[in-house]
Amino acid sequence: MRPGFFLSFEGPEGAGKSTQLARLTRRLTAAGRAHTVTREPGGTPLGTRVREVLLDPALSMDPLPEFLLYSASRAQLVAQVVRPALARAEVVVCDRYADSSLAYQGAGRGLPAPLLASITAAATGGLTPDLTVLLDLDPALGLARAARRGQPDRLEQADLGFHQRVRGGFLALAAADPARFLVLDATQSEDELDAAIWAAVSGRLGDGGAPLVAEQNL
Amino acid sequence: MRPGFFLSFEGPEGAGKSTQLARLTRRLTAAGRAHTVTREPGGTPLGTRVREVLLDPALSMDPLPEFLLYSASRAQLVAQVVRPALARAEVVVCDRYADSSLAYQGAGRGLPAPLLASITAAATGGLTPDLTVLLDLDPALGLARAARRGQPDRLEQADLGFHQRVRGGFLALAAADPARFLVLDATQSEDELDAAIWAAVSGRLGDGGAPLVAEQNL
Repeated sequence: MRPGFFLSFEGPEGAGKSTQLARLTRRLTAAGRAHTVTREPGGTPLGTRVREVLLDPALSMDPLPEFLLYSASRAQLVAQVVRPALARAEVVVCDRYADSSLAYQGAGRGLPAPLLASITAAATGGLTPDLTVLLDLDPALGLARAARRGQPDRLEQADLGFHQRVRGGFLALAAADPARFLVLDATQSEDELDAAIWAAVSGRLGDGGAPLVAEQNL
Repeated sequence: MRPGFFLSFEGPEGAGKSTQLARLTRRLTAAGRAHTVTREPGGTPLGTRVREVLLDPALSMDPLPEFLLYSASRAQLVAQVVRPALARAEVVVCDRYADSSLAYQGAGRGLPAPLLASITAAATGGLTPDLTVLLDLDPALGLARAARRGQPDRLEQADLGFHQRVRGGFLALAAADPARFLVLDATQSEDELDAAIWAAVSGRLGDGGAPLVAEQNL
């Protein structure tokens, strides 16, 4: 039993995570809900440095060290940001979390799932989101959207087959835990996505977005 | 069975690892032994970036993400440098390896040994040195030596009790695997240490430093 509510956004680049995360944040603010918004990799001084390394197009790295770097950023984020905010009974909204590692380094790069699961359990102390919004999108569409934003980073440079495996990985995770995942077709309009996400979040919070009830624990 | 010979140097800052590593390298060169010298963290473009993060005095990090960063650097080093060099039947000399994580993050910072062991096994694929030279030194002496070299890095700033636990961790590792460890009193002269290290290395190589025999496997 812990107070607070932990929400993660998942999906490929170009699916609209940032837009929807910003809209959800505005709704939480309007509803008077104390919240913390963060992201992976990053969210802490250490994580920000690790993020720079992970996204550097000039660096090559094997799948396992890549995963360990994500896990390092994640462990610091959980300890320094997520758990303290949950202990303050806040809503924590995280742009990517452990499911991204399972999809990208597992399904995408082929690292074995039991290895990823055991290291993730250690890095997070077993902390799993209460709700995960998966913005699902055909990788070809997502890459085209991301490309319009400029120079691709190291991950966006990977081939289409990789991104198709990642999509399959996300969908398999969602199928295995339907109570946690909200899977949305990211080709819907921003307004449609926003409404669907807020319906799910306010429903889970159980108060339609009313001001914080500190003892709430969902 | 693998060709090559994998040698690691361990011990605290200020124990003379760099000096002895340089002297051993000169001896290997003089003996015509193909060798690769590397270090942890570092040794690869990725590892060099991770090293900068780990040694930055301005960054704070918890023990687990710290260990995961070392493991990321280690995994890339093993895959990109150590295993290829061993496959070429070279002598690989590494300034620090997994024992440092067990001593610093385990004995020093208190992370549980089974967690460290399982992640280290994954990061290294189980690759263990053939010989580990431990330069043992009273932490108070080592810190004084290191301080004379200038601004202390993040690890050197830790308190004396931490460094005493690290020393105990190294000595416990050596006691548990006496066939692999050569423990030397680092207060000996450079010439004495050099002679003791070369006696052990040339003995293990089994040829007194003669030119490379590719099928050698010790």
